[in-house]
Amino acid sequence: MNGAVDFPLERAELSFRAAGDSLVRRSVLPSGVRILSEQVPGARSATIGFWVAVGSRDEQPADARHPSTFGSTHFLEHLLFKGTQKRTALDIAVSFDAVGGEHNAMTAKEYTCYYAKVQDRDLPMAVEVLADMFTSSLLDRDEFENERDVILEEIAMAGDDPADAANERFFEAVLGGHPLGRPIGGSPETIRAVTRDAVWDHYGENYRPNDLVVTVAGAVDHDALVAAVTTHLEGAGWDLGIAASPVPRRNNQPADIVRGSAISITQKPIEQVNLYLGTTGLVATDERRVTMSVLNAIFGAGMSSRLFQEIRERRGLAYSVYSFAPAYSDAGLFGLYAGCAPAKAGQVAELMLDELRTLARDGVTPLEIERAAGQLGGASALALEDSDTRMSRLGRAEITLGEFADLDEGLRRIARVTPDDVRALAQSIVDRPFSLAAVGATSADVFANVVDVATPTDDAA
Amino acid sequence: MNGAVDFPLERAELSFRAAGDSLVRRSVLPSGVRILSEQVPGARSATIGFWVAVGSRDEQPADARHPSTFGSTHFLEHLLFKGTQKRTALDIAVSFDAVGGEHNAMTAKEYTCYYAKVQDRDLPMAVEVLADMFTSSLLDRDEFENERDVILEEIAMAGDDPADAANERFFEAVLGGHPLGRPIGGSPETIRAVTRDAVWDHYGENYRPNDLVVTVAGAVDHDALVAAVTTHLEGAGWDLGIAASPVPRRNNQPADIVRGSAISITQKPIEQVNLYLGTTGLVATDERRVTMSVLNAIFGAGMSSRLFQEIRERRGLAYSVYSFAPAYSDAGLFGLYAGCAPAKAGQVAELMLDELRTLARDGVTPLEIERAAGQLGGASALALEDSDTRMSRLGRAEITLGEFADLDEGLRRIARVTPDDVRALAQSIVDRPFSLAAVGATSADVFANVVDVATPTDDAA
Repeated sequence: MNGAVDFPLERAELSFRAAGDSLVRRSVLPSGVRILSEQVPGARSATIGFWVAVGSRDEQPADARHPSTFGSTHFLEHLLFKGTQKRTALDIAVSFDAVGGEHNAMTAKEYTCYYAKVQDRDLPMAVEVLADMFTSSLLDRDEFENERDVILEEIAMAGDDPADAANERFFEAVLGGHPLGRPIGGSPETIRAVTRDAVWDHYGENYRPNDLVVTVAGAVDHDALVAAVTTHLEGAGWDLGIAASPVPRRNNQPADIVRGSAISITQKPIEQVNLYLGTTGLVATDERRVTMSVLNAIFGAGMSSRLFQEIRERRGLAYSVYSFAPAYSDAGLFGLYAGCAPAKAGQVAELMLDELRTLARDGVTPLEIERAAGQLGGASALALEDSDTRMSRLGRAEITLGEFADLDEGLRRIARVTPDDVRALAQSIVDRPFSLAAVGATSADVFANVVDVATPTDDAA
Repeated sequence: MNGAVDFPLERAELSFRAAGDSLVRRSVLPSGVRILSEQVPGARSATIGFWVAVGSRDEQPADARHPSTFGSTHFLEHLLFKGTQKRTALDIAVSFDAVGGEHNAMTAKEYTCYYAKVQDRDLPMAVEVLADMFTSSLLDRDEFENERDVILEEIAMAGDDPADAANERFFEAVLGGHPLGRPIGGSPETIRAVTRDAVWDHYGENYRPNDLVVTVAGAVDHDALVAAVTTHLEGAGWDLGIAASPVPRRNNQPADIVRGSAISITQKPIEQVNLYLGTTGLVATDERRVTMSVLNAIFGAGMSSRLFQEIRERRGLAYSVYSFAPAYSDAGLFGLYAGCAPAKAGQVAELMLDELRTLARDGVTPLEIERAAGQLGGASALALEDSDTRMSRLGRAEITLGEFADLDEGLRRIARVTPDDVRALAQSIVDRPFSLAAVGATSADVFANVVDVATPTDDAA
């Protein structure tokens, strides 16, 4: 390969060598099923994922006739482990446990993925069981009610984690009414309200041949994989003979975001204030994403970052402090986090913002860029030793980006980032309306001077 | 190799092939420095650790002249990142960040380990920087005071995590006054009381040639490693010409444990009750450790385990539920965990104990043993793909076990476990005095019928 490889949605067979001599192959079946593999020389295990490009953002608010479907994507994910025409929940669990495999699923804001990591000899089993779960789950009514209680406990556990809770409030504060602002799992109220019929409809409407993306990385033979996936889908009664195009990718234009709130406080009688501060970022396909990676590395990722050095090393104000920049199809965020003592929360918020303003005003040095490039490249190389990372990279390339860039191409892109690029991006970020979300023994007045509560784009609601 | 390889403390050079054709080599230098490596064919990265067999259990209570040193081991671990004769804290951070390496340390109850994972070309740098931190840290007085605040925030963060907090209370409840029962990081009170002189003494007394164990796994050449370690230790002024034997391993006889408390309740206004229930287990060198692994796999590890199936799948009472069996030199634990609604906490505790009693009474099936063997073997094979796991295995072999057993030997040992072995071990566990630790909106009377509060071995205090 040379540079990035496009993944067109139209039917195509693609095959190319990526950095490190792995073999990437991609097949789009006539029915729209997409199968991608990355065969890694010397690998003795494989990670496999069954994906659909549907996440919590696609759920519907309540209307006159139906309760909201908030949380139903995650609910469905749980139910796919609860039994099929052929397998009980215990059968599914035993299949993977008995070979020591890892086996789980993740519901995200824009996709859902069921995955397993197994030794090479167990890959055929993993294909078969995941295909069975994906095509033939029963969503039994008794299991549905039982699982409702499990999910309520999962939400309660996350609610008891103050950093998790603050993170959800932060997304709501920055993204306002945009569907990406909602928590992935729903709320106790929406989970109690979701009906089995709504989840069943969701399953039927979004788990079809042209929704399915299968990605495998590690010890995998592409032809055998395609044959196995085809066999198990057809064995489940799926008609792969019908012609269908894969579901279109999402619109990647930045949405108009109206800030939800300037300050969101959740008072809790705990030791630390969990503090998130930030604003909108870049969409996943923005060409400045690589600049954002460099900016984030310099500003807040790692022990040598400016944020870590200033807040923890010089001042001892926090143990955990960092920045992050999640990106989605039509919105992104740039956020700062610190956990600190309540008496220091206002000071920490101001210092973090000051650091960002300093970077936006004075820029970064070529040496900082060079170190960031080494950091991003080295971390990627280490991460790609794990087939999990490669499996996810294939899914992200297919579902979100529409192109595959290997490690060498990633390094080339990073090498083109200049100090001016970083400063310009930082400048555009600091000019946006900021939001602050805090969970702990604190109050809004502590942060009154930190965040501008009235801006032209502020939501009056 | 055939079976396990002994690691005698006396001076010796050892070299053997382990399962998967990795090459294990071990050198004990005349000064007592121990250097172990596992060269893995095809590896492109390496993980390196600098270990000392000193942990929180070795700290001293207050006496008439000194405050306690509780927390000083963890405090020292932090300070080794804060600067040496040659490097500032920023220099140390930049060394690893600029190559995208992972770089951290862990303080445990019986050891402390400073480690890094890097690409093969960066291993010489990692050896140099870790050796500098290990030998030549300044423990600057200003940095000391600054880091005290950081550690207080770390403790606050852990205290706000209800499962973490309950876990610490559980260890205290089961192990009572035994030093392994104490929290690793100390408490806010002991951290405020620790003096720089006490930490400096700890550093001087426990970071000597015959304390040091260096382990590396992945892309490593043993001779080059030994040469580099020797060069950097001598460059720091260490005299490796003096003759010294490695510090002796700990006494591995089971200690007499007097239960700290039957029921420990920490009331917090949170959603879930975080519930730990259990008793003493096996020491790390007990021959029944492999039986314990099989018992734990069947009873409470994985989605197919009895605990998961009964508490979550059949009854929907918890999202997270499992058992665990940590082992130390002279004590161990067997514990059950669930996070559940306050109204269900008593029921969950009873059901978990019932499951254990059922297993102890009726035993397990050959099929369950077979699945557990597959689970343990497969999970080990996957874990050993990561050089982190191999680096830690070398450290554990050297510091705790005194022998190295590879994957094949592990499988052979598991294959010898019988249903009778498992039942006998389970029976011996259920007969011990149990403790329960709960953090959440609950109270002791909820569990009055679960744990026998008065037993012959109960601590009257």
